[in-house]
Amino acid sequence: MRAQKAFAFVEVRRVSNNAQSRVWRKLTHTPATWKTQLNDGSCLSGIQAVVSSDTAGFADVSSGHVGTGCSVVLVGHLVASPGGKQGAIEVAATSVRVLGACDQETYPLQKKRHTLEFLRTIAHLRPRTNTIGAVTRVRNCLAYATHSFFQSHGFVHVHTPIITASDCEGAGEQFGVTTLFGDGSRPVALPGGGGGASSSAASAGALAELTQQVAAQGEAVRSAKAAKSADVQQQVDALLALKAKLAEVQEAASHNGEGSVALTPQGAVDFSRDFFGKPAFLTVSGQLNAEIFACALRDVYTFGPTFRAENSNTARHLAEFWMVEPELAFADLNDDMDCAEAYLKHCLHAVLSQCNEDLEFFERNTPGLRDRLAAIADPARPFARITYTQAVEHLRAAISAGQKFEFVPEWGRDLQSEHERFLCEVVHGGAPVIVHDYPKQCKAFYMRANPDGKTVAAMDVLVPRVGELMGGSQREERHDVLVQRLTEVGLDPEAYWWYLDLRRYGSVPHAGFGLGFERLVQYCTGLENIRDVIAHPRFPGSADF
Amino acid sequence: MRAQKAFAFVEVRRVSNNAQSRVWRKLTHTPATWKTQLNDGSCLSGIQAVVSSDTAGFADVSSGHVGTGCSVVLVGHLVASPGGKQGAIEVAATSVRVLGACDQETYPLQKKRHTLEFLRTIAHLRPRTNTIGAVTRVRNCLAYATHSFFQSHGFVHVHTPIITASDCEGAGEQFGVTTLFGDGSRPVALPGGGGGASSSAASAGALAELTQQVAAQGEAVRSAKAAKSADVQQQVDALLALKAKLAEVQEAASHNGEGSVALTPQGAVDFSRDFFGKPAFLTVSGQLNAEIFACALRDVYTFGPTFRAENSNTARHLAEFWMVEPELAFADLNDDMDCAEAYLKHCLHAVLSQCNEDLEFFERNTPGLRDRLAAIADPARPFARITYTQAVEHLRAAISAGQKFEFVPEWGRDLQSEHERFLCEVVHGGAPVIVHDYPKQCKAFYMRANPDGKTVAAMDVLVPRVGELMGGSQREERHDVLVQRLTEVGLDPEAYWWYLDLRRYGSVPHAGFGLGFERLVQYCTGLENIRDVIAHPRFPGSADF
Repeated sequence: MRAQKAFAFVEVRRVSNNAQSRVWRKLTHTPATWKTQLNDGSCLSGIQAVVSSDTAGFADVSSGHVGTGCSVVLVGHLVASPGGKQGAIEVAATSVRVLGACDQETYPLQKKRHTLEFLRTIAHLRPRTNTIGAVTRVRNCLAYATHSFFQSHGFVHVHTPIITASDCEGAGEQFGVTTLFGDGSRPVALPGGGGGASSSAASAGALAELTQQVAAQGEAVRSAKAAKSADVQQQVDALLALKAKLAEVQEAASHNGEGSVALTPQGAVDFSRDFFGKPAFLTVSGQLNAEIFACALRDVYTFGPTFRAENSNTARHLAEFWMVEPELAFADLNDDMDCAEAYLKHCLHAVLSQCNEDLEFFERNTPGLRDRLAAIADPARPFARITYTQAVEHLRAAISAGQKFEFVPEWGRDLQSEHERFLCEVVHGGAPVIVHDYPKQCKAFYMRANPDGKTVAAMDVLVPRVGELMGGSQREERHDVLVQRLTEVGLDPEAYWWYLDLRRYGSVPHAGFGLGFERLVQYCTGLENIRDVIAHPRFPGSADF
Repeated sequence: MRAQKAFAFVEVRRVSNNAQSRVWRKLTHTPATWKTQLNDGSCLSGIQAVVSSDTAGFADVSSGHVGTGCSVVLVGHLVASPGGKQGAIEVAATSVRVLGACDQETYPLQKKRHTLEFLRTIAHLRPRTNTIGAVTRVRNCLAYATHSFFQSHGFVHVHTPIITASDCEGAGEQFGVTTLFGDGSRPVALPGGGGGASSSAASAGALAELTQQVAAQGEAVRSAKAAKSADVQQQVDALLALKAKLAEVQEAASHNGEGSVALTPQGAVDFSRDFFGKPAFLTVSGQLNAEIFACALRDVYTFGPTFRAENSNTARHLAEFWMVEPELAFADLNDDMDCAEAYLKHCLHAVLSQCNEDLEFFERNTPGLRDRLAAIADPARPFARITYTQAVEHLRAAISAGQKFEFVPEWGRDLQSEHERFLCEVVHGGAPVIVHDYPKQCKAFYMRANPDGKTVAAMDVLVPRVGELMGGSQREERHDVLVQRLTEVGLDPEAYWWYLDLRRYGSVPHAGFGLGFERLVQYCTGLENIRDVIAHPRFPGSADF
């Protein structure tokens, strides 16, 4: 029989020292024996508890109200488990009380094993499952490890803005942020009218006209009837058609204001009426803002949500995800690679030492998980570092030796995921590789131009099974080179006035990188779909909960 | 003479142990003596450095390139400062190199003292000032103290969603999130046409017609000229008028697609074409989502950005701000008050012990700042706790004794800021007060109904000079009571299906509170305008940088 679970507050009185320590436990309850497994969500496995007929509240739990999903308060003593393994302990319950019952007929998590796909549809209940509970603990561990790493190295945490009207991001596929719709879910009149109001004025005019026409046609029908004319049917049909049209316009008029939007006389959206007085967007990266603080306060980092309105319905993309973006002042690409490597090792060490049981659980579906993480975390095994040019040579040599790739690697083109994985898994024996100095056409405008005129001081940290986990660069700190580069890629230097100011006034060599936090959680849990490692995933068509 | 500052990387070779320790310092440089103040942004005060004519790079810095705002690399030895106070040390520079020059004529932070208002207009440079640098360090300290407090107490950090299509928030004044505008800063055709496309078709028609008219009028002018007709001037005027109109229409047409928006045939915004297939918004609180995790994993907390599209141009409001929202499982209002009090004391203790110099600096404008914070942080001085009813009695007694308020306190009405401050500053001698059990009409639907039928288990933490700093409640965990309450306040229980499910399946007594993080930073720095305690403040008309 599959164990039943209840979420419980358990007050355990330790026998050894008689001190009271409060722990909250999920209660797994087997009616036949009244032997139960307690678990409080702080870890995966539980502890056995025994509820006997002389336990206070026994009648309550034996009345059938206790089952999977319910919550109880349980008080007991910690005792050695008679039937258990050496050293096993259990709780002898002295009292038990049901706090929240749970209808066993309708509870969606009842009885059978559920797929991750199904669990996404009940995202409000899925944290109660082993898998999502473990993901949440691992994610928490990685988040705090992120803060403790940067804080212990003197980095200053900066909250860069989420809404931005800055033209700098340029990446396209940004979400717009607006108050022009009013509150789309409730009809709201726009202040000062605008397109919404004028379109409603237009429909009001149409409404009046149609009402008149219907009245006139009604008159025509009556006349035809009175005259017993042969065209009565024709007149009635015309009346019905007019009435249908009237109903349609009335329906439209009833939506007056709902989701209406202010337009200019030319029919464009009138952003001058919007909250910020111009188009505003959700940020795609905190980097450019972080650079402001790196150039004032030395090393900083951001850790916040970022957004891409990319229409991708894949297991690797989210419309809303969290990014870790450190920015190092007085730093070059080597400092950047050192930092990225130390940070990743720190995170994996934290998760290995603090979430071992959860990792063991994930290992059931991802064999070798802990060994792989431990190998990367090992301080005695520095990451290999090769140039992009060397990487392409390795790949082409592999092709000559018979290796097949879907895409032929060619200097000047982006490395594909298959190439990145091959470099880690085959060339470097299952270890991470940092590839640096990419062709400038593969990388963003702000990456520092190398003296060869062809490459930029960029780097990607590649890991086995996943490929790119982090990407970074030394930033172009030379004002003239940056202006030239902006122009080269078709961006308007005027829009980057403040970013250029950082180079105009006391420019500082600096570097940084970005880590998609969900990718890291995926890497540590082995979960294949990124939607399972964030509380409430956002993707095209989905923003529920 | 006002000290000049440069941002510098300084490699200091300690004389004592000959070890090299790298610190980055702002260089304050006085040309006359070449005695300089070094500072690296990690703290407010600097350390003196001496650059002499035998320092390598002396020519570089004496050529006039070094001044306020520039960045340099300086290498030197730590030595006792001859002219300084007992124990003072300075850096004897052995080499100096300019990394980034700074045009002394145009640098906005040059020379004179600037107002905070002015600094907001150069938000990309203001972190280089003493005030904003100190704010950033204090904010960082409070952010990490938040994480360390909750982590050390076993809370799990949860990233609740930023974008939500959930109807639950209900608070109104939410920002809409959309891809219907395309990318407003760049003309983008909407897939499948829609209102935008048809309005651009209309202007294309107008354009063609006008172009024809201009051509015809040009012909008329030529004919009149050829005929030496007297009405040439009249024809030319008509031509010029047409050309002006053409330019206007061309301008509008060039915006073709920019900010166009998909409309339904009835002229409403067509959200079925939007990214999420329905109206989506920026979150106003992570609480409801945090409750999901509290009911699965026990205590959790969120720390993320929240948004209000409130049209307030005040020193106390931001459109984008960060909230700390813990949620405690198996907890009642007393547990909630205990947690809020312990958390606040922990944060203030952290900032007092780690940012003393910055607080000393802020104290120049806010006398008594550190004493006030220390009094609140003192573990031996628990916060006073009174009921709302007692608070109203206190206030009315004060009025009888001659106290004047702008608003007369009356049971059932919200306490005003003047009342909250009076309770702390006068009734409780400058100490924080927690007021609890408010009338239900003052508070949100999810707060737990008390047995008296009139009040709810809500609490506000009030502090001197500010009033409310935190607000929280025990949540209504009883399914039937919550449904009744939703109906009572005019909300549709259907929209809250998942929130109600938490009560339907193993409901757990739980409680939580929210802290506006910028309010806390303001409280610790004494800064009066909330726009000065966040990197890039967002408010009506402002989303720059």
